[in-house]
Amino acid sequence: MIEAIMNQYASISDLHLKRDDFIIKSLYQRVKMVNEAIPKFISITPPDEMYLAMHHLLNAGGKRLRPSVLLVAAEAVGGEPEDVIPAALAIELIHNVCLIHDDIMDGADTRRGYPTVHKIWGVSGGIIAGDALYSKAFEILSCAKSTPSQIIESMQILSKSCIDTCEGQWMDIHLQERKDVTESEYLHMAEKKTAILFAAGLKIGAVLSGASREEAQALWDFGCLAGVGFQIYDDVIDLIASEGILGKPEGMDIIEGKHTLIVIHALSKGVIIDAFGKKDLTRKEISGAIRTLKEAGSIDYALNVAGNFIAAGKSALRLLPDTEAKKILVGFADYMIERKY
Amino acid sequence: MIEAIMNQYASISDLHLKRDDFIIKSLYQRVKMVNEAIPKFISITPPDEMYLAMHHLLNAGGKRLRPSVLLVAAEAVGGEPEDVIPAALAIELIHNVCLIHDDIMDGADTRRGYPTVHKIWGVSGGIIAGDALYSKAFEILSCAKSTPSQIIESMQILSKSCIDTCEGQWMDIHLQERKDVTESEYLHMAEKKTAILFAAGLKIGAVLSGASREEAQALWDFGCLAGVGFQIYDDVIDLIASEGILGKPEGMDIIEGKHTLIVIHALSKGVIIDAFGKKDLTRKEISGAIRTLKEAGSIDYALNVAGNFIAAGKSALRLLPDTEAKKILVGFADYMIERKY
Repeated sequence: MIEAIMNQYASISDLHLKRDDFIIKSLYQRVKMVNEAIPKFISITPPDEMYLAMHHLLNAGGKRLRPSVLLVAAEAVGGEPEDVIPAALAIELIHNVCLIHDDIMDGADTRRGYPTVHKIWGVSGGIIAGDALYSKAFEILSCAKSTPSQIIESMQILSKSCIDTCEGQWMDIHLQERKDVTESEYLHMAEKKTAILFAAGLKIGAVLSGASREEAQALWDFGCLAGVGFQIYDDVIDLIASEGILGKPEGMDIIEGKHTLIVIHALSKGVIIDAFGKKDLTRKEISGAIRTLKEAGSIDYALNVAGNFIAAGKSALRLLPDTEAKKILVGFADYMIERKY
Repeated sequence: MIEAIMNQYASISDLHLKRDDFIIKSLYQRVKMVNEAIPKFISITPPDEMYLAMHHLLNAGGKRLRPSVLLVAAEAVGGEPEDVIPAALAIELIHNVCLIHDDIMDGADTRRGYPTVHKIWGVSGGIIAGDALYSKAFEILSCAKSTPSQIIESMQILSKSCIDTCEGQWMDIHLQERKDVTESEYLHMAEKKTAILFAAGLKIGAVLSGASREEAQALWDFGCLAGVGFQIYDDVIDLIASEGILGKPEGMDIIEGKHTLIVIHALSKGVIIDAFGKKDLTRKEISGAIRTLKEAGSIDYALNVAGNFIAAGKSALRLLPDTEAKKILVGFADYMIERKY
């Protein structure tokens, strides 16, 4: 799937707009809109602790990229971002469910610099808080202020995308059990696990704002492509950012034996990564593994592929009218592979 | 909430129809419709194992009470059961998510006589299979063949009810940590954890079939009341049915230290249940505890309260026209506290 979309746009020359202050400001403005919506849509009612568990990760921060691009997508097709705030929040909630449940699966202790939900409320608390956020997302979306058919289409996009995200998470876990993972398998997994939710948010923002089929599809494609670029870059960040910035220890993917694009590239070149998949590694051993991957050119390779996906994603936006919103989307795409965390 | 509904109907004299063969046949007919829908709506596609995990508990059996009453509710307001099969399946999927995730929380090894999902596919597999079924339920419901506004109302009912179910599950876990649980707290928990999903199914069946507000509300009330009766009786069954029938060891609630209505009654009478909340109990110790509860009159007390809820639930149906579907609902209600498992 992702390869077909990629091929469609790879040959089109790059749309490029330098990211500058206005992108940062636009992002900040939208993050604020999403943050303000959280307490409005999710009150703390009995059993209070369940609602506190649902709020915990949302309050711990996060970049809010998925809901922010949804708001911009609405604007890019002539809609009002204010009208799609519930949908933006719904996407952010689903993203948070994935993180809360993933942290249980990974046995992760910290996220965004705070203890994970299950570390505070136990595995049962983490599972239930996630399930409740899932339902809340659908409830919030079902109350959107759009036409009934637009709401139903949005709910179909969201539910199908959630299933895709589950498929991606399942693949991610099971790819770790194998040694012969291919680049194509990794890209397919990254599309499902990460990119589809970006794409879903963008398309929902468009659909709820009355976009044409073509515009909605262009925004979906943009999300799929830029989302894969985002995931590849995320794997790079896991290796090069410090714990203080990440909010979790660096090199976790090496400890967990994750077949990222970086590792797949290194293994395909016959590079031996001693530390790969070993628990209780020292910082020195992790640093050594990262150095090995750097020297093999695997990190540069991944950065290059991520850049290609971002470029193809931007090309997908050609169909949209030239507006400030489109500029922001292009800037967002660039930011996805320029960010520090 | 449940007490307010209960008060409304408790004074109305009992609607009673003897359950006979036609109830069993009606139930069987509807279970068949739901079972046939499962492979039609959930194909096995890659990653196959994830879809097998999603199918596992569905294939292991189950009484299909929730989807069956949804089909009958549609008929009771003049609709066609065939038209609401997707909604019925959606309700069954949500029920299965609750069981799959609950089994992880309880560390349960068997369910319906088979290994639990997480015993076969691990905790991660159980969490993801549950999440995917959640999304699938919303996807299937969003594709129902009704008017857009009926579909949206149904999705609102489903999503809100799922949140209630999470609240009930949260309460259930945390009531176990306390010693002073009241009957009112138990009933509130049972309403949220169990009854609301029955009520949601009934109301969705009605709404999608064009029921009046009053009819939909009557079916909701019926579900809330009969659902609480069902849960109380379920706790009784946990004590009196054999492992062969239950598909799981009897007396689990005693081992887990669950504050069922039976235990609350016994404790309020100063009865001491030595085995309560203790792990590694012998069969003899469990039998002893059950005998103590019987002698204290606590099992009879619970059966009586369950009967009152069922009677009040049947009274709520008075508003509906006298049809065969209504007879079946009345029979279902009786069956809920006459069943052997």
